[in-house]
Amino acid sequence: MSPAAPFPIAPGELSPPGSRFHALASPFAMKRGGVLHGARIAYETWGTLAPARDNAILIVTGLSPNAHAASNADDPTPGWWEAMLGPGKAIDSDRWFVVCVNALGSCKGSTGPASIDPASGRVYGLDFPELSIEDVADAAADVVVRGLGIERLACVIGNSMGGMTALALLLRHPGLARTHINISGSARALPFSIAVRSLQREAIRLDPHWNNGQYDDSNYPESGMRIARKLGVITYRSAFEWDGRFGRVRLDGTSPFSDDDDPFSPEFQVESYLEGHARRFVRHFDPNCYLYMSRSMDWFDVAEHGGGDVRAGLARIRVERALAIGARTDILFPVEQQEEIAQGLALGGAQAEFIGMESPQGHDAFLVDIARFGPAVRNFLGRL
Amino acid sequence: MSPAAPFPIAPGELSPPGSRFHALASPFAMKRGGVLHGARIAYETWGTLAPARDNAILIVTGLSPNAHAASNADDPTPGWWEAMLGPGKAIDSDRWFVVCVNALGSCKGSTGPASIDPASGRVYGLDFPELSIEDVADAAADVVVRGLGIERLACVIGNSMGGMTALALLLRHPGLARTHINISGSARALPFSIAVRSLQREAIRLDPHWNNGQYDDSNYPESGMRIARKLGVITYRSAFEWDGRFGRVRLDGTSPFSDDDDPFSPEFQVESYLEGHARRFVRHFDPNCYLYMSRSMDWFDVAEHGGGDVRAGLARIRVERALAIGARTDILFPVEQQEEIAQGLALGGAQAEFIGMESPQGHDAFLVDIARFGPAVRNFLGRL
Repeated sequence: MSPAAPFPIAPGELSPPGSRFHALASPFAMKRGGVLHGARIAYETWGTLAPARDNAILIVTGLSPNAHAASNADDPTPGWWEAMLGPGKAIDSDRWFVVCVNALGSCKGSTGPASIDPASGRVYGLDFPELSIEDVADAAADVVVRGLGIERLACVIGNSMGGMTALALLLRHPGLARTHINISGSARALPFSIAVRSLQREAIRLDPHWNNGQYDDSNYPESGMRIARKLGVITYRSAFEWDGRFGRVRLDGTSPFSDDDDPFSPEFQVESYLEGHARRFVRHFDPNCYLYMSRSMDWFDVAEHGGGDVRAGLARIRVERALAIGARTDILFPVEQQEEIAQGLALGGAQAEFIGMESPQGHDAFLVDIARFGPAVRNFLGRL
Repeated sequence: MSPAAPFPIAPGELSPPGSRFHALASPFAMKRGGVLHGARIAYETWGTLAPARDNAILIVTGLSPNAHAASNADDPTPGWWEAMLGPGKAIDSDRWFVVCVNALGSCKGSTGPASIDPASGRVYGLDFPELSIEDVADAAADVVVRGLGIERLACVIGNSMGGMTALALLLRHPGLARTHINISGSARALPFSIAVRSLQREAIRLDPHWNNGQYDDSNYPESGMRIARKLGVITYRSAFEWDGRFGRVRLDGTSPFSDDDDPFSPEFQVESYLEGHARRFVRHFDPNCYLYMSRSMDWFDVAEHGGGDVRAGLARIRVERALAIGARTDILFPVEQQEEIAQGLALGGAQAEFIGMESPQGHDAFLVDIARFGPAVRNFLGRL
């Protein structure tokens, strides 16, 4: 494990302070063509690897999270899955050695379009080769096998986009994981989510400051990123949750988002909620990385591994046990897609279970409804 | 009925060729303040008003439609509700005298932000007073009462935004309608739809060409309108319908929307579907009119008429019979909102019925699923 980054860091790269880095095999071949030289993956770990190296769990993430899933010795600040991961928690770091990797193509420490291209000495931008979910999976597998010397994971856990990544990893690296938990994931992108992501990408590309991927801090596609993020937040939650949470409550005059001089400024609480999310995101995620990762999800389709049939593709995966869970209010990765994953994995011989949670929080439920998702994960891992 | 328009027409105004025009009372007072001078409403009619003037039906529309709901003697081209309205159809113009009005604030012939402000001789733009759904309702009522000399409508039918307009009309003009059909409407805007509309407005306002409402044909907020329209189309339909309709079908090389030089150009059929909708819309609807009408929906809340309680507000409406219908796949005006309308009108003494249709087409179902919506409307009107 390398303690510090020997790689150049471009302005768009935002790795958490506790990041460790794994140097990918170089050249690293990309599924759709092209290679990366000197690429790296940021990751963090929790717990201790057993002498038999048989207690490792890999977590692969959604589009925006970094590798800091929870606090640890290297970084005591809370992570994005703090309630789920740690000593005594559902993913119990007293028992498991847990690895979370930042996706290839991201700007949170792993190599991506915001990194320096060693061939030119400049930020890759659109010169980065086309990114697929399969590349993200191969890079994560390389961290586990070559980086950490682990030949067999006890479990691979994937959330959202990470649910796609985990399936790609299981298909391309047979035997690497004994079991699998797929959370709010999908075996293929369907048109509603493609449409939403396509529109998010279009908003960024239509921003004149995007400038074909050639922007900097002073000429930055802020408007496009704002719209992309707000559209994301709208589809990550559910109308039902918002009815109860915001209703028609209006902002009072003290809101920092109200502007008396702007006849269309935010007026309702739900608008300031979106505004807050946008402000926390737009300068903390690289626009080109967003475009590449978003498109990789549209392309992903397990049916490619099953002669055009998604269940046949899933049935080629060999795991002993699997759990596919999601929220019934998820409009982006609807629960029918998690049910499809469980059915397909069962066809392949896994003891596979599907749970559709009654969480009101939509696609984001796994991040916040730990009361429902925690016990499901804890029970599954407890029986391993 | 005036045969031609004595009013100036601004570039953004796009009235259908068969439009008739009603001069609103001048000054016309707006609910939130301000007045209009010399304002007009575009409308069309079908069928013949009975000597007793008791067979009139008023249709109030969604945000984007004009008054040309169906072909008629003045304009034989098909209208936006052609399958529903005409001789022998569900809204039978052999029996009923049907009036469809273009909303106040629209750019399809009625006065709105794209019209000439008689005080300045220039397009209103943001100098147009704040538009509320109640103003739209008052203007429609003025067409009926002062324009056509009808004191009592057999029925008022409102779709989508028009469902809001119809409720406002019934509240502010008691006795004007005997019965009411509310289709995919709502008694108040809820946070999901507010969030979607707020983001549509933001996309337009962030477009530098919007320029605080001061644009023209050569400096036009085309990007913002594209995003607003595509986001609309995404929320007007349902994921379920799209799965069956588009799946993951890709565009072939002959698609006019593919661009080999653009690494992010449309690749899936669903993306070209959105693109086609955007191209047909962006130059045919005025951006400022869009902003004003969109915001009027966010503001609408029947609870204002019921001491803060939406059902109490609805219970103040007096109609003999009512029908509230919608599609169970509608995410923008979910069927619970139509059920709420029927419940509230029943509290007010109406014989009120709710039907949640199993249409896959979401909010747009009333425009296309005539097989389901047609019989419901026909049965209701047939029993009058």
